[in-house]
Amino acid sequence: MKKFCFPKENHLKNQVNYCCFILIAVVFMVNNSYAQQPVDYVNPFIGTSNYGATNPGAIAPRGMVSVSPFNVAGAPNLPHEKDSRWLSNPYVYENTFLTGFSHVNLSGVGCPDLGVILTMPTTGKLETDYLKYGSTYSNEVAKAGYYSNTIDKYNIKVESTASIRTGISKYHFPQGQSNILINLGVGLTNEEGGMLKIVSDTEVEGIRNVGSFCYYKPEESYPVYFVAKFSKPADETGVWKKPKKQNGLEGQWMGYNGKTRLYKNYKKEVLGDSIGSYFTYHFKKPTTVEVKIGVSYISIANARENLKKETQNFSFDEINKSTNAQWNNLLSKIEVEGGTKDDKTIFYTALYHTLIHPNTLNDYNGEYPSMTKRETKTTKGKRFTVFSLWDTYRSLHSLMSLIYPKQQSDMVKSMLNIYDESGWLPKWELNATETTTMVGDPAGIILADTYLRGIKDFDVKKAYEAMRKSATQLENNPLRPGIKDYLQKGYLTTTTTKSGSVSTTQEYNITDFAIAQLAKELGKTDDYKVFSKRSTSYRNLFDKEFNLLRPKNYDGSWFTPFNPNTGANFEKNLGFIEGNSWQYTFMVSHDVKELMRLMGGKKSFVKQLDKVFDNKQFDMANEPDIIYPYLYNYAKGYEWKTQDRVSSLIKEYFTNKPAGLPGNDDTGTMSAWLIYSMMGIYPSSPAEPLYAITSPVFDKVTIHLDNRYYKNDTLVITSNASENKNNKKHIQSIYMNGKKYRSYFISHDKLVNGKTLKIILK
Amino acid sequence: MKKFCFPKENHLKNQVNYCCFILIAVVFMVNNSYAQQPVDYVNPFIGTSNYGATNPGAIAPRGMVSVSPFNVAGAPNLPHEKDSRWLSNPYVYENTFLTGFSHVNLSGVGCPDLGVILTMPTTGKLETDYLKYGSTYSNEVAKAGYYSNTIDKYNIKVESTASIRTGISKYHFPQGQSNILINLGVGLTNEEGGMLKIVSDTEVEGIRNVGSFCYYKPEESYPVYFVAKFSKPADETGVWKKPKKQNGLEGQWMGYNGKTRLYKNYKKEVLGDSIGSYFTYHFKKPTTVEVKIGVSYISIANARENLKKETQNFSFDEINKSTNAQWNNLLSKIEVEGGTKDDKTIFYTALYHTLIHPNTLNDYNGEYPSMTKRETKTTKGKRFTVFSLWDTYRSLHSLMSLIYPKQQSDMVKSMLNIYDESGWLPKWELNATETTTMVGDPAGIILADTYLRGIKDFDVKKAYEAMRKSATQLENNPLRPGIKDYLQKGYLTTTTTKSGSVSTTQEYNITDFAIAQLAKELGKTDDYKVFSKRSTSYRNLFDKEFNLLRPKNYDGSWFTPFNPNTGANFEKNLGFIEGNSWQYTFMVSHDVKELMRLMGGKKSFVKQLDKVFDNKQFDMANEPDIIYPYLYNYAKGYEWKTQDRVSSLIKEYFTNKPAGLPGNDDTGTMSAWLIYSMMGIYPSSPAEPLYAITSPVFDKVTIHLDNRYYKNDTLVITSNASENKNNKKHIQSIYMNGKKYRSYFISHDKLVNGKTLKIILK
Repeated sequence: MKKFCFPKENHLKNQVNYCCFILIAVVFMVNNSYAQQPVDYVNPFIGTSNYGATNPGAIAPRGMVSVSPFNVAGAPNLPHEKDSRWLSNPYVYENTFLTGFSHVNLSGVGCPDLGVILTMPTTGKLETDYLKYGSTYSNEVAKAGYYSNTIDKYNIKVESTASIRTGISKYHFPQGQSNILINLGVGLTNEEGGMLKIVSDTEVEGIRNVGSFCYYKPEESYPVYFVAKFSKPADETGVWKKPKKQNGLEGQWMGYNGKTRLYKNYKKEVLGDSIGSYFTYHFKKPTTVEVKIGVSYISIANARENLKKETQNFSFDEINKSTNAQWNNLLSKIEVEGGTKDDKTIFYTALYHTLIHPNTLNDYNGEYPSMTKRETKTTKGKRFTVFSLWDTYRSLHSLMSLIYPKQQSDMVKSMLNIYDESGWLPKWELNATETTTMVGDPAGIILADTYLRGIKDFDVKKAYEAMRKSATQLENNPLRPGIKDYLQKGYLTTTTTKSGSVSTTQEYNITDFAIAQLAKELGKTDDYKVFSKRSTSYRNLFDKEFNLLRPKNYDGSWFTPFNPNTGANFEKNLGFIEGNSWQYTFMVSHDVKELMRLMGGKKSFVKQLDKVFDNKQFDMANEPDIIYPYLYNYAKGYEWKTQDRVSSLIKEYFTNKPAGLPGNDDTGTMSAWLIYSMMGIYPSSPAEPLYAITSPVFDKVTIHLDNRYYKNDTLVITSNASENKNNKKHIQSIYMNGKKYRSYFISHDKLVNGKTLKIILK
Repeated sequence: MKKFCFPKENHLKNQVNYCCFILIAVVFMVNNSYAQQPVDYVNPFIGTSNYGATNPGAIAPRGMVSVSPFNVAGAPNLPHEKDSRWLSNPYVYENTFLTGFSHVNLSGVGCPDLGVILTMPTTGKLETDYLKYGSTYSNEVAKAGYYSNTIDKYNIKVESTASIRTGISKYHFPQGQSNILINLGVGLTNEEGGMLKIVSDTEVEGIRNVGSFCYYKPEESYPVYFVAKFSKPADETGVWKKPKKQNGLEGQWMGYNGKTRLYKNYKKEVLGDSIGSYFTYHFKKPTTVEVKIGVSYISIANARENLKKETQNFSFDEINKSTNAQWNNLLSKIEVEGGTKDDKTIFYTALYHTLIHPNTLNDYNGEYPSMTKRETKTTKGKRFTVFSLWDTYRSLHSLMSLIYPKQQSDMVKSMLNIYDESGWLPKWELNATETTTMVGDPAGIILADTYLRGIKDFDVKKAYEAMRKSATQLENNPLRPGIKDYLQKGYLTTTTTKSGSVSTTQEYNITDFAIAQLAKELGKTDDYKVFSKRSTSYRNLFDKEFNLLRPKNYDGSWFTPFNPNTGANFEKNLGFIEGNSWQYTFMVSHDVKELMRLMGGKKSFVKQLDKVFDNKQFDMANEPDIIYPYLYNYAKGYEWKTQDRVSSLIKEYFTNKPAGLPGNDDTGTMSAWLIYSMMGIYPSSPAEPLYAITSPVFDKVTIHLDNRYYKNDTLVITSNASENKNNKKHIQSIYMNGKKYRSYFISHDKLVNGKTLKIILK
């Protein structure tokens, strides 16, 4: 084994800190009790079909950069192509026409953004039109931190890997003329505008506008900077520009009007909406060229530094190995035994998907753009970005608190940075813009949840102040539109908002519950009482006629006509956003007992909950109801239904196939649901550090706890799952540290401070 | 008078060299024998109509920057608007709709280029569409280095001045909301693409693509960089972007599709084809804001340095005074007495126009872009640009040799720089691009002419090598297409070129004549013989049938049918570019005696020359025939015709009006013709340091010679011109230094080494 050292990123310049790959490798060898490493189970194709919106691109854990095949710009009229629908991913498994590799990408989101800095290797005469230079491809291989294919038209094998902020590709060119293109004129979205400047025969730098997410905020477009370095000097370089066609007499005189223009061997900035660069080679024999693309959201200089510091003089293979090792190191925090190979594959791929977003925003030197103003700030730690909090508060962040508490702590700190800079906690933050996507005020839930799980190394005073601000400020409150009605009436009305008056009320309730829980923990008794009271105001919207939640008008009357089925599959529905009453009514896991009472008791509750599933109102792909299968645990005697529902949902929706996610992964939310569900526990109520217990998929799950946060080294969940092949068995008994445990819920504290949770199925 | 010092530009950083304005002012006071200073006679409106293509913008002598009112983008269908024809100037006198002030502009050229970095002050609600924020204007005032108007719609008085690389404007805003716009989405040409980045509430930086001249070479577009500084911090800043409308479903979902987007208080780069920035103020009382825009063709950093070093903390008024003083200093090199006020006005305005191009390309620190590759080079002296040599070799450069020999020397050095960088002398160089506009190989003519006039402080060896290269290289010769036929047959044929086979032959002849003259001076006898012989090969194209030059076919036969009238007014004509046989036949001033012989002697020659004028074939607006009126001097006894023709051409074509130039000023060529003609001398044959003498317009012309090149302090031309009000008088006698002089030609040497030339009219 070749020994090489990799510099650890460090913003203190004088303090050089190396971690040696060899050490990581040794740790693996010691720890390795698998035939395969966890990283070997990752299948990045999962989620690349059925709107999963993941991509198989090479990425490092929480990387700013990924190198994704880009195959959505081939034929605008096909259903899976960009612009034919609201396509949010650079790659769709079914598509076949590759037009390059994009270097900044989102994974598992519901709106298009990024998907730019597209590279493409070609051979023969230079062609700059992607519809002409695009090609089919074959021999796809995707692993954690690695992607490869062969571009059929040119017989070029492409391999890609990535460090945090740098994409590294290796193009295996045949003999003859070859070209490496960087096309800034095409991307995943309609956003345009770029700059390219060829620095030398081995380097080009550039800027590309990206944004805005969901096309919500035109003013929230911003630049991404990059530097591309090539391992071999090109024989010719240049930039192309495709201007729009001009009208008028002068346009007629302009010989090149509307035609693509080539700037050969040109070394100054080229600016415009549709530009690209080419590096051309004339190879006497088959030759490989490595391309490193460093990225920054601060400046070209930082992009260059990111590239340099992260990749030094390391080869593609060295970087690929290192990134693979980083992935394996993180994935190995959970070891599983038992289950099928597919079980392990979907499990580790899900864990992999939870380690993509939130991702790194700060540069190697610690610089990152501040919220709103995009001023350059410096962090001594991490500034994470891509906080899709309406999604992730339900499952992802509590999982991070359990498995990667340091990362979760850094995420909380990033959220507080955002509060410092913008005056508000994030809702759906993306690269220092607040996209204000979806409803509710979810950040506080995560802050409270994290603290209550014992991750306390952040400024809780500030966190509490921030949570309280959005819960109490009546005017100009971007996080809680309709707050006045909410406080006055207890709910939003059909006049207050056209975007989910009921669901928004529920979201505010959950956040207020979170504030109450944290207030209690911090000894703020008055606040505890106030916010506890507020947290159940959804009860005003419970309509006994339907045994469901129902929107109310401004005057307090019920919204009529009311069809609780309306609203599924993104139908417009006044009371509920992205869902209907069935999909929202039970989303009060902090108050299930009262809901049960309102519905007429346990049996009536179970019956109503059954209806959701039996009448196909349950939507595995959307967040509000993903907790539903666990709610049977609240109905004593019906816990087996949780076990049945969860088992069959896993079987139905999560598979080792490109379509193996139920829909958008929602930056790891669905994946986190799967991980929990396969381990046999699920956080039953956000901001309440409690897990519902269900039947695990694996015989043994070993979680290596982080000793900076937890006293025990490991938490082990065992079961006789391998005897439950047909999912006919149910939990017979539970043992905590060998002692019989009589509840189907277990607190976070009890779990992590115990050593073994044993679940017996029969 | 306020005393203030102005830093002299200096590339040696540690050596600070100040020249004090007060000193310049003192010199004026001592020298001042005028009621008005020369600078006071400059009327920058001359040439702004009738296709003169000058502009009234504020500019420093040979400035990189000018601040020109931009009124050609108001209504695309009007005849004097951009894009309705090949409009080459940012301003047309007849137009009325102002959309801003452009900061890089060409003066007196025949193709559109530059005309960008448009500023516009407005009041009231922000409007970013120039068709909406544009306005009529009034109270125009233009002086050397100063322009002012009032923008009617907003009642804003605008004043502008400039240093070499910085435009300075003063906006007198009323009370209320005011906005200063910089629009990179509109310019004189179809070129697009820019970047804007707001640096602070008093500063914005940017880049704009410009080029290519005449839309000839798509690859010769390049960036101009700028930094704008405002004297008062804005209350709001922002950037706008007008993207093109996207098609497809995604476009429909994009609420702002195709709509102008505002990036408020945004501090990162905005890139694209149609972008602009705004600085908004809320004034409690009428307020002036000064805007300084520094420009560079190297980088934003250099633009910032140019601005800083040139304008320091000086106010608008201080800079305006300084620039005015620089103009006056240069214009005062020629003092005239007698003549009318209009005579002085057209004279000094013409001299002003000869001091605009060639202009400065290098930055304050000496950096400039190299030819072709645009690499950063550094000059210790000046790098001039805008060499429209097919025009300027005829009159401008010899005038510079006489009046501003140091400038002419620097121009020659810049031409040799271009040779060093590109391997070829320039033909029509513009900001380090070779536009290859027009025909012939004119640079050598200027190099020889300059040297032969005694301006020798350049590398004549290199100059000769460069001239010889284009005259002898048979393959891949960009300066002499058709050289093989030229050498083999003595002329280009109708097969060799479709763009003026005869005229190109004549141009090559003249250059070869220039090479011969320099060869002789340098003692290269063999070359002298070879090139002397080549210089008269046009004779092969003299057709006795017409007594004119006529194109020949490849086989040596005459091109038929032949109508010598065809080709005037830009009609297509195989043998002659931009002209016809009448307008070209006499363009052999180095061989007039032989032409006379070919035509059948003196009388026949005079008759034929008369026909040109009498049959309205003479074109004062085009270069090939501007020497014609002086050719009568070669026909002894007919010199009075030169005097008559020149006098009446001055009267007819050169007036103190916007239409007071015969057509394109051609970067000062027409102006130089006028200056010479009004002084009573004209360079009768390029590369032959000889002047034809005609009747002056002024009683006394005093040229202050540059002692670095000439031993005498002054050259004085006197006459009794003021007695010649009706132009009925002719030259009766000429005295050189008091001695009777018997020729109508005088050598440069004799002229500058004599002290007085006295011309008696009767």
